[in-house]
Amino acid sequence: MLDNAIFVKTNILKLSKPFNLESGITLENVEIAYETYGKLNKNKTNAILVCHAFTGDAHVAGFKEGTKKAGWWDKLVGSGKGIDTDKFFVICSNVLGGCQGTTGPKSIDPKTGKPYAMNFPFITIKDMVSLQKELVSFFEIKKLVSVIGGSMGGMQVLEWVNTYSDMLMSAIPISTTMKHSPQQIAFNEVSRRSIMLDPSWNNGDYYEKASPELGLSIARMIGHITYMSDISMEKKFSRRTKTYNKSFDVNFEVENYLKYQGDNFVKRFDANSYIYITKAMDYFDVSEEIFKNHINNLKFLVINFESDWLYPKYQSLDIIKLLRLKHIPCTYCEIHSTYGHDAFLIDIEEEARLIKPFLESIKI
Amino acid sequence: MLDNAIFVKTNILKLSKPFNLESGITLENVEIAYETYGKLNKNKTNAILVCHAFTGDAHVAGFKEGTKKAGWWDKLVGSGKGIDTDKFFVICSNVLGGCQGTTGPKSIDPKTGKPYAMNFPFITIKDMVSLQKELVSFFEIKKLVSVIGGSMGGMQVLEWVNTYSDMLMSAIPISTTMKHSPQQIAFNEVSRRSIMLDPSWNNGDYYEKASPELGLSIARMIGHITYMSDISMEKKFSRRTKTYNKSFDVNFEVENYLKYQGDNFVKRFDANSYIYITKAMDYFDVSEEIFKNHINNLKFLVINFESDWLYPKYQSLDIIKLLRLKHIPCTYCEIHSTYGHDAFLIDIEEEARLIKPFLESIKI
Repeated sequence: MLDNAIFVKTNILKLSKPFNLESGITLENVEIAYETYGKLNKNKTNAILVCHAFTGDAHVAGFKEGTKKAGWWDKLVGSGKGIDTDKFFVICSNVLGGCQGTTGPKSIDPKTGKPYAMNFPFITIKDMVSLQKELVSFFEIKKLVSVIGGSMGGMQVLEWVNTYSDMLMSAIPISTTMKHSPQQIAFNEVSRRSIMLDPSWNNGDYYEKASPELGLSIARMIGHITYMSDISMEKKFSRRTKTYNKSFDVNFEVENYLKYQGDNFVKRFDANSYIYITKAMDYFDVSEEIFKNHINNLKFLVINFESDWLYPKYQSLDIIKLLRLKHIPCTYCEIHSTYGHDAFLIDIEEEARLIKPFLESIKI
Repeated sequence: MLDNAIFVKTNILKLSKPFNLESGITLENVEIAYETYGKLNKNKTNAILVCHAFTGDAHVAGFKEGTKKAGWWDKLVGSGKGIDTDKFFVICSNVLGGCQGTTGPKSIDPKTGKPYAMNFPFITIKDMVSLQKELVSFFEIKKLVSVIGGSMGGMQVLEWVNTYSDMLMSAIPISTTMKHSPQQIAFNEVSRRSIMLDPSWNNGDYYEKASPELGLSIARMIGHITYMSDISMEKKFSRRTKTYNKSFDVNFEVENYLKYQGDNFVKRFDANSYIYITKAMDYFDVSEEIFKNHINNLKFLVINFESDWLYPKYQSLDIIKLLRLKHIPCTYCEIHSTYGHDAFLIDIEEEARLIKPFLESIKI
C-alpha cells in the first residue's frame, strides 16, 4: 500500500493582516492549516481546491509521518487517481472555526490570552471560503482549475461560485445543497442541544477542564445515523446483538457501533467547533443569489448518491435547475449506492470515473 | 364541536392476582388505566381493542370532564365514525410500563413503598399485550371483532395475532413493523442516551427531585424529527426565522417548534417510561414466529402512509408477504400523505374510509 503512497505534512499559514468576517467583526492572528499534493506549475494554472466536509480536515490524501491512516479522500486524490496529482496541484485547508489547525473556538484569543470558547465570533460558510481565498492568493494563484467538495465541502464550492466565480474554471459540488432544509437544521439543533446538555460543556468554557465528551458523543451518534442509510445499517448490523439477554446495556451491534464512533470522535473534535460549524451550515443559503451574475464559462459537475437521505437528490437537482435556466454548462450524475450520505467518501471508484474526465476537459 | 361529543373518564382495573412477565418476574398490585366507548352487547361479541402508540394513552376519543382536548383518535372513534361506537364497544388501555395510569416505573413498588424507577423489571410488547388480555377477560369478552393500532400500537396488534389469535376475528396493524430496523433502534438509543446524560436523571432515581426535563425534551425532539417528513417540515416551517440575526439562539421556526414540543412533552411523560418502552419496541421481533400457527379465519387490513420514513412501506409489505404465503385473507393499502409517520394520527379521513367497511365486513 505504501509503495505509491505520498507523505505529507500539514502546514500553517499565518495571516499577516486582520481577517474580516461577514459580520463586520475582525479576527487577529488567524492561522490556516493546509496540505498540498502535486506541484504548482510555473504559470500557476493547475491548482484544484478541495473543501472538506463538516468534521473533516486538511489531510485529504497520503500519510502523515508516523501515522498509518490515509487521508480522507486518499482513494480519489493522488498520482493517476481521479484528481491526478501528477497533473494538478491540490490544496486543502481546515475550515475557519474548525479544530484541526485553523483558527477556531479553541484557539487563543489574543485579547485575553485564553481560548475564545463561545466568545469566538459567529462565522459563516462565506467566511470559510473567504479564508480559503487568502490561502489561494498566498500561492499567487489567479484561477483555480476547479473547486470540489462533498456535503459542507459542497456548500463551500457553491459559495466560491457565488462570491469568486472569476477565480474558477469549474466547480464540482457533491452531495450538497444550496440551503439546509428544516429537517437538516432540526438534526443539527438536537445535536447542539446534546452538547449543551452535558454539564461539562459549561457554556463552552471547558478547555482547562473535562470536555463535554458524553454530549459530543451523542451529537456524533445522531450524525452517524443520518450519514448512513436504512439499507446500509441493515447490511452492516441487522438486528445482531452481543448477548441474548434483553437489557438496558448496549447490546445491539448498531448501538455498539454508534457508541464506538461517538467515543472516538470526541478524541479528535472540539465540541464548540461542532456548534459553530453546524450553525454556519444551517444559516447558509445561496439559493436566491447564486448564478445571478455572469459566470465566465464556468463548467459544473453536480453529483449525488442514490441512498443519501440527508442531502436528498432534489437538492442537487435544484442546483441543476438554476444552472439550466442560465444556460450554464453543467453535468448531473446520480451514483447508485447504498451507503447514504457517507457514499461520497466511500464509493470513490464511480466518483473518480466521473471526476477524472471532467477535470481533463478543462483547458488550462 | 361538543354537540356530538362523548364524555369519558379513565377507569382503573386493579388485578387481584400477581402478573407474570415474559422474563419470569412477577409484578404485584398491577393496575390498568382504560377507557371504553359505546356499549358491550349482551353476547359480548362487539368489542374492538385499540392499542396506543409509544407516548399515547387510554384516552382515544371524546372529552374528559374539565378538559377541552379531544382524545388522540377522536376523529376515528365515535358515533358514526370509522370505528363506530354506535355498533362497537371500544376499549383502550394505557400500556404496561407507561405513565398514564397503568403500572410502570413511576408506580410504587410494594416491596419498598417507593417508585420502582429503574428497579422496574424489563418489559416487552408481549407483556403489554398479556396485560391487555387481562382487561379483555375482565369484560368476559371471548373474541374481539378487531384489534387495531398504529406504530407501537401496531406492534401490539401483531403480538395479539402472534399470541392470542384465537381471541381475534380481525387485525389492523397500521404504520408498523414486525421488528425494528437498526435505524429505528439507533434513533431510540440516542434518545435514551440524551435522557441519561441529563444529571437530573440520576440513574432513574428522580421522583422526589427535579426530573430530567432537558434530556427528555431532547429525546422528544429527536422523536419529532422522525415522526414528521422532510416535506411536511418544509411545508410547516421552511427556513423561516424569528429574526434576521444569525445567532446561537433558537431562531429557525423548526427549532422553536421542536423546543415547544419537547418542553410540553416533559409535563406529561415520564423519562423512565421513555427508556422502558423504547427498549420494549427495540427488542420486539415477531418476524420468525408470527402466522406460524393456524390463524382461524382471521382477516387483516394492513395500512401504511406514503411519506412515513420511520416505519417505511417495506415493513408493511413484509407483513403482507408472510400473510400471502400462508393464504391468509389480507388487504394492503398505502395512503397518500405528506405527514410522515404522524400521518396515521392526522390523515384520518382516508384511514376511516378503509377501516369502516373492513370492520363492517366482519361477521359478528
